[in-house]
Amino acid sequence: MSQKNLKTKASLGFVGLGAIGLPIAANLLKAGFYLQVHTLSRLAETSKQLKGAKSCSTPKDAAKGCDVLLICVSDEVAVETVLFGPTGAESSLTEGTIVIDLSTISPSKARFFSARLAKRNIEYIDAPVTGGTEGAKDGTLTIFIGASNASFKKISSVLKAIGSAFYTFESVGKGQEVKALNQILVAGSYAAVAEAIALGETLNLPMNKVVEALQKGAANSWALSNRSQSMLKDEYPLGFKLHLHHKDLAIALRTAEESGIKLPITSKVKELEEELIKQGYKDEDVSVLKRSITR
Amino acid sequence: MSQKNLKTKASLGFVGLGAIGLPIAANLLKAGFYLQVHTLSRLAETSKQLKGAKSCSTPKDAAKGCDVLLICVSDEVAVETVLFGPTGAESSLTEGTIVIDLSTISPSKARFFSARLAKRNIEYIDAPVTGGTEGAKDGTLTIFIGASNASFKKISSVLKAIGSAFYTFESVGKGQEVKALNQILVAGSYAAVAEAIALGETLNLPMNKVVEALQKGAANSWALSNRSQSMLKDEYPLGFKLHLHHKDLAIALRTAEESGIKLPITSKVKELEEELIKQGYKDEDVSVLKRSITR
Repeated sequence: MSQKNLKTKASLGFVGLGAIGLPIAANLLKAGFYLQVHTLSRLAETSKQLKGAKSCSTPKDAAKGCDVLLICVSDEVAVETVLFGPTGAESSLTEGTIVIDLSTISPSKARFFSARLAKRNIEYIDAPVTGGTEGAKDGTLTIFIGASNASFKKISSVLKAIGSAFYTFESVGKGQEVKALNQILVAGSYAAVAEAIALGETLNLPMNKVVEALQKGAANSWALSNRSQSMLKDEYPLGFKLHLHHKDLAIALRTAEESGIKLPITSKVKELEEELIKQGYKDEDVSVLKRSITR
Repeated sequence: MSQKNLKTKASLGFVGLGAIGLPIAANLLKAGFYLQVHTLSRLAETSKQLKGAKSCSTPKDAAKGCDVLLICVSDEVAVETVLFGPTGAESSLTEGTIVIDLSTISPSKARFFSARLAKRNIEYIDAPVTGGTEGAKDGTLTIFIGASNASFKKISSVLKAIGSAFYTFESVGKGQEVKALNQILVAGSYAAVAEAIALGETLNLPMNKVVEALQKGAANSWALSNRSQSMLKDEYPLGFKLHLHHKDLAIALRTAEESGIKLPITSKVKELEEELIKQGYKDEDVSVLKRSITR
């Protein structure tokens, strides 16, 4: 399929059926693609949402005969295993197929995977997503694509089934770089909302009215509009898991360090998240940052 | 006028004609109020925008015979001087008049000023504003009011001439508490945008496209939408002066400390701002925080 654009009814491999991966895979199935799925726990493969997909026991099997392999796993070690591990996909990927990596990993690892697959004439595209579990379910993810418009066109029918906004950034790794900036912004704005909400509660302010007032001006953010309620209730349903955001901040900080710059606020938020992870909050939404503000 | 609501053509004293105060006073004049103005430098009193206002040599003169005195100065020491200094307004304020303090000061000082004026049956209302120089010019400020709805009604004709959103928080000082939360949010979100923009530039990403992409989701903020351009140009016209935001963060942190909580991100941003002030950036917009991210 290498030079033509992908149609629905094409055959997709999909590896990684977590909180984000499963609803994405379900949307691809709904859009009419033929799906071969695999996930490490093997549990989600047979879920109702994936009825009609073929459950596979290894990434290698999921990749067999596919036009495109999608990967949506939690970190770069997992991506490496999926691609190049003992039962990895590489050996069953044929020349001209495309790997779309939806995972958030470091830009340098994305380039490394790309170079390794390019030797076999397999294109690797980093396409990290943002929009959380809600966006994954609704098919409204924003996708940062480390590839040219021409490459994007080949896979646009796939991505349009799972997202609603697509930004191409020419070369491999650039999608991950933009995702790193995204996570830096999430860090600072969520942490600021956590501090403001915690202080407001301590002062016994009428917080619903306060949040409405604060949204009017320069203090506003997506986090204030969309996560202050969960902080006020002190309940943190997903959303986006704290430990994954923490991993993403590590990537951002390493990328900054490689570029020779320091990010003091991001570093501080990463520290706060580490403390919260130690306290057992790793699987809560990032807005659990509010728990870091205590008396 | 104590019990009835204020009409236009009422007589207002106005002290403090800085970057925010001058356009506010001009809007009051446009709305038809009679204005007696004073400012420390004496310079802005005779500006074209205030044609028709009476220039006064002291706060005491500006307050003479007025129904409402408005104060818009840079800190609580200045408010104290305006009210209670050797040529302060207190001695010429008559029973039943109202003082509207638009300045951002500490909640505890607002309560202190209120108690002192209450002895002479003068009502003091803290009404800090947000919306910057743009909002002040356009008459679209958001105003956090430390008073009951009943008190607000008495002065609503005045405030409606200068703002477009009004939130009352029952008792004196509460307006300042909400303003403190506002500045905490500004701190974290501006600082996060500064870090993201600085890293993105270092990585040679196409930043206009990147900013557009980042606005789609959980990373978005007023700061990203409205201040990333000035960071990209590395030009920081007002806006809101860095040293005033720094003073506001000191208030927020003191308020938090009095409440027994720590705000690590706000503390860190305050440190960064101190460093920038030392470097000579005190009169730039808060978005100059980007300069704190260097190689």
